[in-house]
Amino acid sequence: MAGIVVSALVLYWPYLVILALTFELLRPHFQKKKTRAFPDLKAKKVTDVYEKRKEAADDSDNEGDDGDDDEYKPPIAPDVPFVPYTAPRYSEKEMLERSQAFFEEMNQRRTIRFYSDRPVPMEVMESIIRTAGTSPSGAHTEPWTYVVLKEDIRAIVEAEEEINYTKRMAGQWTADLKFVRTEWTKPYLTEAPYIVLLFKQVYGLMPRGRKKNHYYNEISCSISCGLFLAAVHHAGLATLTSTPMNCGPALRQLLNRPENEKLLLLLPVGYPSDDAMVPGIGRKPLDEIMVSY
Amino acid sequence: MAGIVVSALVLYWPYLVILALTFELLRPHFQKKKTRAFPDLKAKKVTDVYEKRKEAADDSDNEGDDGDDDEYKPPIAPDVPFVPYTAPRYSEKEMLERSQAFFEEMNQRRTIRFYSDRPVPMEVMESIIRTAGTSPSGAHTEPWTYVVLKEDIRAIVEAEEEINYTKRMAGQWTADLKFVRTEWTKPYLTEAPYIVLLFKQVYGLMPRGRKKNHYYNEISCSISCGLFLAAVHHAGLATLTSTPMNCGPALRQLLNRPENEKLLLLLPVGYPSDDAMVPGIGRKPLDEIMVSY
Repeated sequence: MAGIVVSALVLYWPYLVILALTFELLRPHFQKKKTRAFPDLKAKKVTDVYEKRKEAADDSDNEGDDGDDDEYKPPIAPDVPFVPYTAPRYSEKEMLERSQAFFEEMNQRRTIRFYSDRPVPMEVMESIIRTAGTSPSGAHTEPWTYVVLKEDIRAIVEAEEEINYTKRMAGQWTADLKFVRTEWTKPYLTEAPYIVLLFKQVYGLMPRGRKKNHYYNEISCSISCGLFLAAVHHAGLATLTSTPMNCGPALRQLLNRPENEKLLLLLPVGYPSDDAMVPGIGRKPLDEIMVSY
Repeated sequence: MAGIVVSALVLYWPYLVILALTFELLRPHFQKKKTRAFPDLKAKKVTDVYEKRKEAADDSDNEGDDGDDDEYKPPIAPDVPFVPYTAPRYSEKEMLERSQAFFEEMNQRRTIRFYSDRPVPMEVMESIIRTAGTSPSGAHTEPWTYVVLKEDIRAIVEAEEEINYTKRMAGQWTADLKFVRTEWTKPYLTEAPYIVLLFKQVYGLMPRGRKKNHYYNEISCSISCGLFLAAVHHAGLATLTSTPMNCGPALRQLLNRPENEKLLLLLPVGYPSDDAMVPGIGRKPLDEIMVSY
């Protein structure tokens, strides 16, 4: 029986890797010991609302098959109750103003390589990472670990970057990056008050050592990073989305991270320096990124 | 010579796929015809600031090698001038308040499957997609196309989803998703006023038919999606990050999208219905997603 499951997993893994962001939520509700970070939704039974809207193709998922597929025990209880969605709604006028103002705010964000060493309160970092943690994820697996460093990792990163720049990167790539005028040295790694390493959890661990599938973990972590960027910028701070090529293994070992975590992004966070400069480039206009039918 | 380039690309492609988010910006500055979406940064020459901070390992990138690597002509001019970074900075107190308030706002967001058919002004969609377009991307390739549909694609998606649910998805996956209580039918595809398809451009097209490398295009598009989600929620609307498994080819054909675009996400956008419900699940607390050293 386990053999069938394993061979099905082997056979169908590409499909596994493709549908789960369709669905988004949750975790074992039986883990009630900790305060959850959701706003105060009052749980109530799944009501008429859901029943009325119950989608077709009923496979009688509520009755009697908990025993059936015991080997497919899900991390989140299938009978978790539904609650009303209570986020604020705005008038059309307010919505227009808010959406425009938010664009203008986010449009001021730039990737920054020049940081002040002025300290940033840890509470701010915590709010930023909490915000990143509000991201949706495949089957609500929340496959991200944000590691906040004060420790110096510059030597490790620069050692790899020197090899990257001089040996590993193809000509086209270094040509494409000339406008940024970066080299293998990374002064921001010692200037910025915080370095954040975003690890994607390529699988999760469940009780009794079972592995939990982390569907779409890279996409999920990257979406979470988008919320992280918005939060950093909204706080008046700056960051840089960098991919520390080939540094993952050395950093994982240094930080003693578990083997299900793979380094995805390195994000310095701090105040931009007073003399911070950015390439004077623009962004694609709307008609190059949006198409209507 | 071209052979060497091609074989280097073949040999080093995994490395190509790994460093470029380190760098982020831009596009051919010679494309001046359109209004750029950046705030009013006044371009000025690269000044003392940059020279003073000029990083080590100088490879004399400004002089005389434009001719050298003509076959590596970059999409963005290497001598694009730098400009000061002028985003607002806040007092420590303001920063703490802003970061906390932004978390609380974003924490109200949930993935929604129940939409009102009430119309949403196209201007709001435009601001939301403009916001998504402020995302950083590998070597500033901006590899995203947001396709906004009013057209009905429900039949296409449901036809694939029926096969996905009944044949393609492994037992563990359907078990993991039971708490969401979805089926292959997707009423939101006809209820929501807009369906947005996010296509990743796996490569770009340059003049004379040359292909442009889109480093980290999936990560870049997913980060952009994070900003899209923040903008949707800030406007008082709702969305759902869904991955329309196996629907990409049919939808690309229907919409006549170019072959460098691959479907990444399907995002309905609209007002949540008055009776919208969500699973009563929580999010991981901070100490499960953040680690400090």
